[in-house]
Amino acid sequence: MKIVIVGGVAGGMSAATRMRRLDESAEIVVFERGHYVSFANCGLPYYVGGVITDRAELLLQTPESLGTRFRLDVRVDHEVTGIDRAGQTVSVRNTLTGDERSESYDRLILAAGATTRSAPADSTSAAWGLATHTLRTVDDVDHIDAVLAAAPGSPSAVVIGGGFIGLEAVDNLVRRGVHVTLVQRGPQILTPLDPEMAAPVVADLRAHGVDVRLNTSVVGSDAPADPATSAATGLLLSDGSLVPADLVIDATGVRPDTSLAAAAGLAIGDSGGIWVDETQATSDPHIFAVGDGVEKTDAVGGAGTLVTMAGLANRHGRAAADSIAGRPDAAEPAVGTGIVGVFDLTIAMVGWNEQRLVAAGRAHRVVHTHPSSHAGYFPGAEQMAIKLLIDADTDAILGAQIVGGSGVDKRIDVIATAMAAGLGASALSRLELAYAPQYGSAKDAINQLGYVADNLLHGTSRSVQWHELDAALDAGATLVDVRSPAEFAAGHLPDARNLNLDELRARHGELPAGPLVVHCQVGQRGHTAARLLSQLGHDVRNLDGGYRTWLAGRAAMASTPSSETLSERIPV
Amino acid sequence: MKIVIVGGVAGGMSAATRMRRLDESAEIVVFERGHYVSFANCGLPYYVGGVITDRAELLLQTPESLGTRFRLDVRVDHEVTGIDRAGQTVSVRNTLTGDERSESYDRLILAAGATTRSAPADSTSAAWGLATHTLRTVDDVDHIDAVLAAAPGSPSAVVIGGGFIGLEAVDNLVRRGVHVTLVQRGPQILTPLDPEMAAPVVADLRAHGVDVRLNTSVVGSDAPADPATSAATGLLLSDGSLVPADLVIDATGVRPDTSLAAAAGLAIGDSGGIWVDETQATSDPHIFAVGDGVEKTDAVGGAGTLVTMAGLANRHGRAAADSIAGRPDAAEPAVGTGIVGVFDLTIAMVGWNEQRLVAAGRAHRVVHTHPSSHAGYFPGAEQMAIKLLIDADTDAILGAQIVGGSGVDKRIDVIATAMAAGLGASALSRLELAYAPQYGSAKDAINQLGYVADNLLHGTSRSVQWHELDAALDAGATLVDVRSPAEFAAGHLPDARNLNLDELRARHGELPAGPLVVHCQVGQRGHTAARLLSQLGHDVRNLDGGYRTWLAGRAAMASTPSSETLSERIPV
Repeated sequence: MKIVIVGGVAGGMSAATRMRRLDESAEIVVFERGHYVSFANCGLPYYVGGVITDRAELLLQTPESLGTRFRLDVRVDHEVTGIDRAGQTVSVRNTLTGDERSESYDRLILAAGATTRSAPADSTSAAWGLATHTLRTVDDVDHIDAVLAAAPGSPSAVVIGGGFIGLEAVDNLVRRGVHVTLVQRGPQILTPLDPEMAAPVVADLRAHGVDVRLNTSVVGSDAPADPATSAATGLLLSDGSLVPADLVIDATGVRPDTSLAAAAGLAIGDSGGIWVDETQATSDPHIFAVGDGVEKTDAVGGAGTLVTMAGLANRHGRAAADSIAGRPDAAEPAVGTGIVGVFDLTIAMVGWNEQRLVAAGRAHRVVHTHPSSHAGYFPGAEQMAIKLLIDADTDAILGAQIVGGSGVDKRIDVIATAMAAGLGASALSRLELAYAPQYGSAKDAINQLGYVADNLLHGTSRSVQWHELDAALDAGATLVDVRSPAEFAAGHLPDARNLNLDELRARHGELPAGPLVVHCQVGQRGHTAARLLSQLGHDVRNLDGGYRTWLAGRAAMASTPSSETLSERIPV
Repeated sequence: MKIVIVGGVAGGMSAATRMRRLDESAEIVVFERGHYVSFANCGLPYYVGGVITDRAELLLQTPESLGTRFRLDVRVDHEVTGIDRAGQTVSVRNTLTGDERSESYDRLILAAGATTRSAPADSTSAAWGLATHTLRTVDDVDHIDAVLAAAPGSPSAVVIGGGFIGLEAVDNLVRRGVHVTLVQRGPQILTPLDPEMAAPVVADLRAHGVDVRLNTSVVGSDAPADPATSAATGLLLSDGSLVPADLVIDATGVRPDTSLAAAAGLAIGDSGGIWVDETQATSDPHIFAVGDGVEKTDAVGGAGTLVTMAGLANRHGRAAADSIAGRPDAAEPAVGTGIVGVFDLTIAMVGWNEQRLVAAGRAHRVVHTHPSSHAGYFPGAEQMAIKLLIDADTDAILGAQIVGGSGVDKRIDVIATAMAAGLGASALSRLELAYAPQYGSAKDAINQLGYVADNLLHGTSRSVQWHELDAALDAGATLVDVRSPAEFAAGHLPDARNLNLDELRARHGELPAGPLVVHCQVGQRGHTAARLLSQLGHDVRNLDGGYRTWLAGRAAMASTPSSETLSERIPV
């Protein structure tokens, strides 16, 4: 059995080494168009930032080490340019010599990953007259490093695109003393989040000196007509401004690299990724595909989707080898767990966001909480914001978003595990999570989500979302802020009247007879107030997530262009 | 409806506040025999250590604050001394005045918690002539604080019992500059762990200067016959030594406080806790019970069990209120997740350990791994040791133990969630856990456990446990260390021959034809070696957890008394 693998990083190399462990007799050839295999692609931004100081740390394996240990025939600087499915051969070009040759296979595994969504960096670079790079390869970071080292004084950079890689680039460039402008075409960075969850991240970026430009795109540079006379110094933005740029990072995102597969007539999914069945086989039973180039099945919607995460690439590479070795292990639908750290924030998400649920017309409930990372009385507790999305019919967890500091990664992993296992949102209340005061709370953030979900499920609570508040007030509801007078004085909702929770029992008669919306800082006292008022005969809802979520929502709307209404961002 | 609650800390106060939110009209009376309610009992050791500096932080609520917000009638310094079930009244004694009175109830909730297992501290204290305290109440820490403040120079303390509270006491006393002796009756601290998982914790305690005495008990003190002539200075131990003690902490453990329930004729479970059904009702439908005094249903074995964790107490307190309000929410069986931090270590566990499985005759598989807390190339990664216990028939997860630094709490929570949801061990490989290099690995520690479990399930790997190695070698197996010669030279197993994994393919012919046991440092290279040799025709097993787990096992056995054989600690 001869197995040829296209691509020697996460998915391809997982397939190769698992294949060898399952079949000592197989011939295994890996072609990698780049110069490195098995490199730490997720570590690249941190090498730019000087967090990872030793370049050798990025290179986890070499063709030699893989040859010695796993008897793999790894050929770097070799690009596979075509597949002859009938003849079961691939055409391969040595990118250093230009030599072309043909290589036969019994089974082929495509693991070429993704490619940049925008025009190739080289061409924009040429047009702009500025050093422009993606942040995807070891060569990329070597080039970026060289540009920064050569830049005079304190250099400036423009990062285009506020997704995961864009934010990691921003963080690490700032860490290195670079002045950074972040250019985002739309009104929001980190589009897997809902707007009120992303807005605090923008505030944090700005607090760290990053010039964040929302609703903005790059339209050109100040490159002179004759580059010989002078050099470009910056990028021209759609808002008319010129921002300095010794360096431009193109982080506008990636799309599956399906060129080989499409040219060979393999099925491509509606999402744009290579179609595979649950054993990672493509529409040709001799060809398998894994990684960022491949379509996954969405765990929430059931349709084809793209999830460009290293974990799935590794997992599916191994699964492809299992399939070829005759012991297929069916892939699970993907929940799409992701995480990114930027400055002091950790931002994580899984599943669908509210905008996507609304667009799909899927009935759902929303919960916002602001729990502590651990017991409040133990030093170092950090507050996080959590948003949980729940199927209104089944109580299934449809998604979650968390923004905070320590403990965010733990909570998203627990929710991702609960989703994968089919636990309902209310069942989160019953999880026995490890508690000592430096690690969590006796009622952990996860349990609290379950309690709120349980109250909504049983009608014990009714809530209003931040983006539904105006409509509720327009319909005649009275807004009651149940925080303390001191909190109220420090800042409050425009139309709120203040009636401290601790006086509510005695003074509720002062409230009008019509519908009420109560709120506190984060939603917890609001819930107690709502329960009390409801039992006293009032028609009452609690503002979900309290003043804090409302503030974040307002900040998000401030960046929404007037041409776009709130209901277009979160259709109500 | 009048509800009387006995006990005003975790379970009792959760019941009281939930009750109020569900029923504004109920009369709710809480009797607490101590002077404080809703205090941070899990934070008490950290106040002793000066980590929590403000004593007010320990007092989360007061009778007044609870009265104002929740209209609770909270009476501290009131001990309930008896229950008249027929008359539906309790007898209550004011511990300050000695006054006795009767209080009627429609529903009674018992949440009195646990009591120390040993003789009351006061009596031992009197016998030893030394300040002896438990670490369970605010009064306890006030007394400990006073003793340490009054002790001359650098004080000494003896902590009796190496469980969760004992270790937290040790950590915090050392933090405060106290010289600490830890006295443990048996051969092992932290008995929820298996011996090879607990041994590294003892090594860490000793590295921090703690005098750990295993297989030792306190037999008395050097108190003079006439206390007027001089004072006691230390405790006499069963090994004949005298250890200095300005302070003695009794952390020998707790047992359910069932005195009220038993006297009233309520059913007591075989575990010694108050029997309740899944709605928290006792054998008297008007009486409910929650918290450390109550028997839970064991999720692994199905029998009654004791789990003294704050999370369950809070959860069940809330559930009792739900039941009384007519919306019962069935309790789930308990997996018993626990965690403790001591110095730089975090130790966590869930479910059953190997010793318990062996004793119950339950067929199981064992996996030891030593993964990194996050990607090895990113600074700050810490190695942890994980032990996973798997049902040999169903692949169900039966338990886990983790010892390490950062990331331990996350992994135990994910495993606890997987257990609660009924995910099999192999399915851990498929979890999509949040990955960026500072948070985890593309193949996370949890995924790795799943991969190993999957290999064992399908017979792709066969392993030998550390305590099975001698028997395998006695039966004629050859032990092959596949680490590098440098690693071998730095320390190796007594009977091992060294043959580097990278030379194994070429030199395997040098190995004898009989059965082989291979091993590396942690088990991963051993797996690759075992797969290779197996395909080359050898009968081979991998030493689970590698040299590191074997070393920990050997250290554990060094503390096993000669009267107790290895097979008694881990019956093979």
